Amino acid sequence: MASQIKDFSKLCIHTITTKPWEIEQSAEEFAKAGVGGISVWRDTLIGRDITKTGEMLRSNGLEIISLVRGGFFPSIDSKKKKASFEDNRLAIDEAEALGCPMVVLVCGAEPKISLEKSRDQIKSGIEAILPYAESANVKLAIEPLHPMYADTRSAVNTLEQANDMAEYFNSDYVGIAVDVYHLWWDPHLEKEIYRCGQLDNLFAFHICDWISPTMDMLNDRGLMGDGCIDIKQIRGWAEKAGFDGFNEVEIFSNKHWAEDQHEFLDKIKFAYLNHS
Amino acid sequence: MASQIKDFSKLCIHTITTKPWEIEQSAEEFAKAGVGGISVWRDTLIGRDITKTGEMLRSNGLEIISLVRGGFFPSIDSKKKKASFEDNRLAIDEAEALGCPMVVLVCGAEPKISLEKSRDQIKSGIEAILPYAESANVKLAIEPLHPMYADTRSAVNTLEQANDMAEYFNSDYVGIAVDVYHLWWDPHLEKEIYRCGQLDNLFAFHICDWISPTMDMLNDRGLMGDGCIDIKQIRGWAEKAGFDGFNEVEIFSNKHWAEDQHEFLDKIKFAYLNHS
Repeated sequence: MASQIKDFSKLCIHTITTKPWEIEQSAEEFAKAGVGGISVWRDTLIGRDITKTGEMLRSNGLEIISLVRGGFFPSIDSKKKKASFEDNRLAIDEAEALGCPMVVLVCGAEPKISLEKSRDQIKSGIEAILPYAESANVKLAIEPLHPMYADTRSAVNTLEQANDMAEYFNSDYVGIAVDVYHLWWDPHLEKEIYRCGQLDNLFAFHICDWISPTMDMLNDRGLMGDGCIDIKQIRGWAEKAGFDGFNEVEIFSNKHWAEDQHEFLDKIKFAYLNHS
Repeated sequence: MASQIKDFSKLCIHTITTKPWEIEQSAEEFAKAGVGGISVWRDTLIGRDITKTGEMLRSNGLEIISLVRGGFFPSIDSKKKKASFEDNRLAIDEAEALGCPMVVLVCGAEPKISLEKSRDQIKSGIEAILPYAESANVKLAIEPLHPMYADTRSAVNTLEQANDMAEYFNSDYVGIAVDVYHLWWDPHLEKEIYRCGQLDNLFAFHICDWISPTMDMLNDRGLMGDGCIDIKQIRGWAEKAGFDGFNEVEIFSNKHWAEDQHEFLDKIKFAYLNHS
């Protein structure tokens, strides 16, 4: 069983969850709400001094958990492939400037490339940027994505595959972001979470819920408790595997983005205490 | 490598693929097109004498491959659960009357029940109807469904799970329908297809394609060749596993249903010869 959640000290919210807010407002509102951490989407940094933005977040009492996102390695075009390496190095620079210890990798997929080749290109991509990540002291978290994204977003679709990949690199700087939305259906999830934790590869834990019926394949994620995922059970497995980091709320939702974001933040707090 | 497809003798089309047509017109048009087989969706039989419908299909030179669909076992309501057994027995009766050797099972899922419990209820459901299927000489084909349907349509989401279940029953009357749409992303697909064939559990092979971007989670399947699935490769694996049955085209598509169905049938034939 998962530990009882009693406060918001281990709650982290992704900036995209409250997308209508600029990062400054998110920081202020999260701080007022007693939220402990923030994960930063790169688009929120555009036009800003990143070092100062990091200071602003910390001065609001927020711990910076992840920068989202790098990855997208596979491409049929060798120029684009090289550009993806550059973009990943830039993400690492941004994380370093922000004072953020980790970049989340949405590994990428390309419908014109076989999954097998995409997976090889993902491996090569991580190989290419890993020395840069190590010297910047920024970790890379492979995020396995739901199989419904295997055509264009990620050819890494199970925790087993992500574990295989992290173990192949066998580096303190390559681990995994487990997101319940992507992995809840997997009959091997419990076993693979233990495997992930045992080798110290469980870098991040993302939560939200799967709504029935889901009306949009990307932007209809639910608040914890509004769907069918047994988040407590999965969080219990992560804790048993040794994870004691933040629970990161990452919700893409046209419905919730259309709400008053103060009310939405209240709902997140309630759902976090009662359904996570 | 898959064998070269040279004619339509092993092409089967599901009645739902040309949904705007009544079953009589489908039969006539498929026959004119030289299509060898038909799989019948139960809604097309409503208000008809099923035995005579079977005769009509055969008199058009069509082999009847599958009746679609039974299953939907999990429920929080014990009355509904019993009703699902009744409905599955009715499907078996219909298959027998039609002269159809197999019922495809979309096993079911229910967001209020854990996947584990749903899987147990699916097992109990198959157990409950199996003697009835055996005495009617009608086979049951478990169809593993894409993980994006794990909330409401099927808690069996990989071929590995379906293989486990079929092997648990160890009956000539329980096997599997492999649909490339549901399984193409699975890194264990090749291995599990061989396992399935070796034990004579590979009962059916369904084809269509995964469109990028997919606009509707249910009704945006593509014609073979219009998406990212390497159908030839997967068909090659099925053949290597000993499968020599029909290739069943099962496309749910708002786009294609809105077309002239004669033109759509021509496109199916072309896609079957060139991209399957």
